[in-house]
Parts: sequence; C-alpha cells; structure tokens
Amino acid sequence: MLNPVAIIEKKKAGTKLTGEEIRWMLQNYVTGAVRDYQMSALLMAVYFQGMDSEETADMTAAMLESGKVLDFGPGGSPRVDKHSTGGVGDKVSIALAPLAASLGIKVPMLSGRSLGHTGGTLDKLESIPHFRSVLSLVEMKRMIESVGCFISGQTNEIAPADKKLYALRDVTGTVDSIPLITSSILSKKLSEGIEALVMDVKFGSGAFMRSKASARKLARSLLKTGEEMGLRVSTVLTSVEQPLGFAVGNALEVIEAVNLLRGKGPRDLMAVTGLLAAEMIVAADLAKSKSKALQMARRAVASGAALKHFKKWVAAQGGTLRFERADLGLELAGLRIEMKAWRSGFVRRCDAKALGLAVMDLGGGRVSVDDDVDHSVGLILRKKINHKVKVGEPLAVFYARDMHTLREAEERARSAFHIGNSPVGQRTSLIIDFPR
Amino acid sequence: MLNPVAIIEKKKAGTKLTGEEIRWMLQNYVTGAVRDYQMSALLMAVYFQGMDSEETADMTAAMLESGKVLDFGPGGSPRVDKHSTGGVGDKVSIALAPLAASLGIKVPMLSGRSLGHTGGTLDKLESIPHFRSVLSLVEMKRMIESVGCFISGQTNEIAPADKKLYALRDVTGTVDSIPLITSSILSKKLSEGIEALVMDVKFGSGAFMRSKASARKLARSLLKTGEEMGLRVSTVLTSVEQPLGFAVGNALEVIEAVNLLRGKGPRDLMAVTGLLAAEMIVAADLAKSKSKALQMARRAVASGAALKHFKKWVAAQGGTLRFERADLGLELAGLRIEMKAWRSGFVRRCDAKALGLAVMDLGGGRVSVDDDVDHSVGLILRKKINHKVKVGEPLAVFYARDMHTLREAEERARSAFHIGNSPVGQRTSLIIDFPR
Repeated sequence: MLNPVAIIEKKKAGTKLTGEEIRWMLQNYVTGAVRDYQMSALLMAVYFQGMDSEETADMTAAMLESGKVLDFGPGGSPRVDKHSTGGVGDKVSIALAPLAASLGIKVPMLSGRSLGHTGGTLDKLESIPHFRSVLSLVEMKRMIESVGCFISGQTNEIAPADKKLYALRDVTGTVDSIPLITSSILSKKLSEGIEALVMDVKFGSGAFMRSKASARKLARSLLKTGEEMGLRVSTVLTSVEQPLGFAVGNALEVIEAVNLLRGKGPRDLMAVTGLLAAEMIVAADLAKSKSKALQMARRAVASGAALKHFKKWVAAQGGTLRFERADLGLELAGLRIEMKAWRSGFVRRCDAKALGLAVMDLGGGRVSVDDDVDHSVGLILRKKINHKVKVGEPLAVFYARDMHTLREAEERARSAFHIGNSPVGQRTSLIIDFPR
Repeated sequence: MLNPVAIIEKKKAGTKLTGEEIRWMLQNYVTGAVRDYQMSALLMAVYFQGMDSEETADMTAAMLESGKVLDFGPGGSPRVDKHSTGGVGDKVSIALAPLAASLGIKVPMLSGRSLGHTGGTLDKLESIPHFRSVLSLVEMKRMIESVGCFISGQTNEIAPADKKLYALRDVTGTVDSIPLITSSILSKKLSEGIEALVMDVKFGSGAFMRSKASARKLARSLLKTGEEMGLRVSTVLTSVEQPLGFAVGNALEVIEAVNLLRGKGPRDLMAVTGLLAAEMIVAADLAKSKSKALQMARRAVASGAALKHFKKWVAAQGGTLRFERADLGLELAGLRIEMKAWRSGFVRRCDAKALGLAVMDLGGGRVSVDDDVDHSVGLILRKKINHKVKVGEPLAVFYARDMHTLREAEERARSAFHIGNSPVGQRTSLIIDFPR
C-alpha cells in the first residue's frame, strides 16, 4: 500500500518515483488525504533530487487528469499556443494571440496573474473596462469557434492539482525547481487541447530564471517532457536584462501592445513578437520556413488584419476600448512626473527587476495573492541601454497615484539606471534560438 | 522583516541561518503564524543542507525556551541523566534510574513512547498497574527530592516546540537529520535542569541509526552542541545487531529489568547498564575512574540497594508490583508458543529489527501515534548469536493474544534467525566507547 512518508523518503534518497506513486500522491493531495506539509516536504525533496523527464511527464499527466480539458474533437484548424515564463514589460501575448488568430490559428490561451515584479497578462487585460478575464469552459470553446482566440484565467475545473500545488510552492520556497515548473506549465497548456506550444523562456534580472544556463535547462526540460506527452514544443530564449518595450504597468502595456498592432511598436517588442508569431505559424504548418512565416506575421500587422482581430476578440470578451483615443479610454494615474538624467552619457544599465519593483511600489503589482492591483499606474521609459542622454533629459515618466508611492518608486527606478561615458560593448542578445 | 519563505530559501541555498532567524521561525511556528507546510519545507532543506553546531545550538535553545524548565536552584546533589536513541530490547533506563539514584545521583528522566519497532520506556512502564507515567512539573520536583529519580513523559509545558516539531517530522520524512535529532534530544534533556548527560547512541538493524558511521556523527553532534549549550555530554556507542537481553515486549522487559537489579540479568544487558551507570557516576563526580564507578554500580546491585530504590520509585509513581511473583503481577498474554529450531547448528543471525517488528505484529508496538499498545505480548529469546542449537530446541517463546497475530509474528521472527554450521567469527563489539 502506498503511503506519503514512504514516497517522500524515496525521493529524498534520490530514487526515481513510479507513475503510480506520483499519481497517488497528487490525487490524494487534491482530496486532502495527503496533507500540505507532506506535499511541501516532497516538493523540497524534488528540488534537491530532481525528477527525470518520465517522472515530470507523470507529474504533468497527474495534474492534467485532476481537471477538465478543452476538447475540440478531431480535425479543424491547427491549435497552437504561446507561453512565456514572464518578464518585466512582456505584453507580447496581448498582441500575439489575435495576430495568430487573424491567420487562422486557433489560440486557446490560459494565462496567469502577476506575483512579484514580473507582471501577468491577466492583470494587464483587466485594465480594460468590462473585460471578462475568466471564462467558463463552454465560453472558451465558443470563443475559439467564433473569434479563434481567447485569453482567460485558469478556472477551478482546469488542472486543480496544479493550482493547489502552485499556491503551496509559492509559500514554501519551492518555486524554482525545473521539473515542477515544467509540469505546472505543461499541465495547464495540455488542458487547452493544443497540438503545439511555442515557449518563450525568459532569462535575466527581470525574469523568473536569472541565468541563461537555468533558462536553457528549463527549455530542455519542456522539450523532453513535451515529447513524452505527445505535445510538439518549440522554445526560444529571450533576455530580460531591461524591460521589453518602453511601457511597464498594466494599462500602459495594453496601449503599447495596441501600438504594436498599429505597426508602431518598440523595436525589441516587435522583434520578439515577430519571432514568436513565426514559430506559431510554422508550428501550425501554415508556412514552410521561418522567414516566410515572419513575412506573413508582418503582413497581418501592416494590413490591419491583426488589429481588426484584436478589436473583435476584446469585444467578444466584453472589453470596451476607445480606439480613437491615444489612451484607448483606459484609466491612467493622474500624477505624472519625469525622472531626469543626473548626468550626460550613455545608459549602460536599465535594470528590469528594479523597474518592475518600482511599478510594484506604485501599486501596480502584487506582493501576496490577495493584493489589489492598481491598473492605472506605471512608467514609460524614455531611454534604454546604449541610448545617449543629456543631463536633465527624462529617463522615464511615472504615472502615480500619490507623492508617497511616487517617491519610493523613483528612488527604486534611479538605482535601475547607470549612465556612463561610453555605450556597452558586448551585450547579451535579446533573442537566442534554442535548437531542438 | 523576517519571513518564512526567505528563511526557507536561505537554508535551501546552503546558507547558515542566524540565531534570530531560527528563533523567529520556531516561535512563530508554535503560535501557528508559520505554517506546518512551511516548517516541513524548512526541515527538508535542513535535511539536505545541514546545520552547524551553532545553528543546532540556536535551534535547541529556541525549543528549550518555548517551554518550562525544571528549576532545582543552585547546589544540591549532582543531576545527571542518561538518554538512549532507542533499540529493540533496550530496558536499561528502568534499572539504571533507580540504580543511580540509590548512589545519590538525581535522575530527572523525561522519556518517550515507542513508534515503529524500537519500543519506548514509557510503554514498558505503563505495563505496571497504576503506574503514573506523566507527572506534572511540581510532582517531578517532589520525586527528585523524595526518591531522587523519576521517569515521566514529556508534558505540554516542556519544549512544546519540540513536541510539535517531532510530530511533524514523523509524518514528513524528516526524522533522520542529525542536527534535528540533536536539538530534539538536547532541548528535552536541558529542560530537566541537569548538569551532565550520558548518551547511549545505538546503531544497527534494531536501532534508529543503522550504521556505526551515522551513530558516530550523531554522537559528535551531541557532544559539540552540548558544549555550545554548556551541558557536559558523554557518549557511548552500542550495537543493536540483536536485541539487548532476551525479552522483547513491554511487561516482559520490565520483568527482565527487575531481574537485572536482582543480579540475574543477561550478560549483554548487564554490560551496557554497568557501563552507562559508571559514566553517570563519573559525570556526577562520585568516582574518579570508570573502573571504580563500575564497582560502585555492581555493589549497588549486589547489596540490594538498587532494587530497594526501584521499589520505592515505582511505588512513588503509583505503580503496584508483586515482587514475590516471577511475573511481578504483570499481565502476560496467555497464548504461549515456542518457535523451534528447524535445523541444528549455530545461530548466526538474530535480527533485532525483524524481532521488533514481530512484537509489533503481536500488538506490542505502535504504527501510528494513536495506536493502543498491548503490554502483555512479546517474546523471550532462548538463543542468540553464536549460541549452539539442536533441531527442535526452542529459539524463542511467544506471548500472544491470538493465533492470527501469533502466526504473523512467528513468520516474521523466523526470518530474523539464521542457523549455520559454524559460529560467526569477527563480530561488531556490543559497546564502543566514544572518545571526546
């Protein structure tokens, strides 16, 4: 007979767990027969002893089986999703989902809320008035039929074991385990009923994975476990040394995503979005080469088809935007103050983590799960790495609620910048293709 | 500000925790602000990353401070206790406490119940009719004044953090961590208000520590941490390759302990008890050398002083024994069956763990904390390692409640024995002195 202590002891000793043991543990954890304190001990043992791709696949399957799956039946248009491990300023999904859908790809995207400094797509979307950010399974299926995409929070029906487990990992110091991250991502993504997944594994100060090496490990684990589970996964590594784009903050990032679909996005954001779109198009078999796929993505933006699809999608999820206005009718905090350069030179550092934390100081993020998020606050960068700057020129503009949070945020943002005499020479590439 | 996740992450990364962090964590765990699942994650991280003697001392101090301490004031007779890490057939404390007390040593002994196959002193004593196995702090002090010794369970007032932590470790696979074992033992022992502690660290199949190497590690940790805490500790390593003495089972072991005090104990039991008594006598400064101390111990038995003290002690804790009877008036299970040797030869194996489990099969142990223990069951070995045996001769006698449990126990006990053509040559010594 299986028992939790024996399973914990087994993993603690570095022995591979069987599929039966992993399933039993997860199933009994969901019912409460295996207790939180036993699961957290197992998770810590997994942190130290790891799990191989077979164990990770078993874990993924057990979490997947704990809930319902979007079932689209056989045939139909290709279903492909993109998932990012999260980074400061990452608003790619908001533009990418309707872009891909405008090309006929079905994008059933389950997304998360922010915790810590990296921001979450759902929070960004919730800055849109009346936007319904959590759909039922029936609504999700209808969205895929009518619009071709949705972005929704995870309901309680989808991988409840993952939901319970993630909340536990968050408060027990067991978040940063490659097999646990892998099974959490893949169980949610497999619940979407997709055929292929494009992973944007981010690394750097503003990302969840700090080093390129750990991002590479996670990418490999996602590929191998995806293979075990019969899901085609492709991965791209991207750097979050500085924020992606210029906007950090929920409403501000929605505006930047729309600007991107208008062909006026920041270069780095366009590059990452274009690459991920191309990966999705290739994964959906709509183009033979990545360069062809990239052309298709560019055309979808240039022709306005992607923006048209964005409008249709947001409206279908209840959101109301005023596209005739620069602020799209979103509420933006009224206290706007520029942070000015204290010397002339070149920006050598524009630290993503510090800037993410500065937006949290403004109230735009979440320290714990129950915190309210202020969607109207944030900052717009005026200068990024290697930009030339003169003393007194603005480095960034803050959108704040009050002077108190503004001062804290400015203090923090100041430490994010370093201005030197010369630009930075050798830099980490923004995008690193990850070979299979 | 301290927070549990940061402390878990710190230990996970292998960094030494400060005394403040350890105290904060323990104090908040006792109040419930730090949750079970966070503590178990920390304990698992401690299992993998260890704690040095300073951290272990901080942990010990925090647990000690969570409760009350027996305060005997300055001066008075030396207070010395003995503690064993537990082994099958270990009934030493029952004879040793009154023996030492008869020589003027104060022995305030807090003891535990059994879990698993090793048996606990309290369970053994509870086979004595009317014996009060849990005393209040006031009663403990009175016993030390009037009788010079007591053996009692840990009340809720003593090291409650340890009590809560031990229960958690038991169900989360985090029992076998040297610093956690050390702090658990020492916090309880320091609560007794003793000046010196003699540790019997047992190793082998029937003990908690399986290997001599791990026993040695624990002994070292106890010595070093004791030193940090200002407690004189001396340690002896003893082997539990086979049960200590012939009796295994609660009432049967009480009878054997009394026989020891009558000068009729098994040789190995006499050797271990004598050595530990000598260590206590030296620690109490009542003899200069161990050989002198051993003589004193032997004389206390030979003169009947130790037995007289035993009677006084048991009566003071409410116990009623009939010393005129061989069974002391204890209830012994009525179904008595001999297990006979299946061949002639020499006993080469008489495995302590299997025999401990056989007694559990009979109902004499506890699988989980709430289980009832049947004090009347057990077994008496007739043959031990290197004894010559003829086919059909009894290897052991079972005391059972019913045929069902008897058959299970016999099956198990059979696997404990190996009879070969010759005795075993090189053997692990029963007693290994551990130098400071």
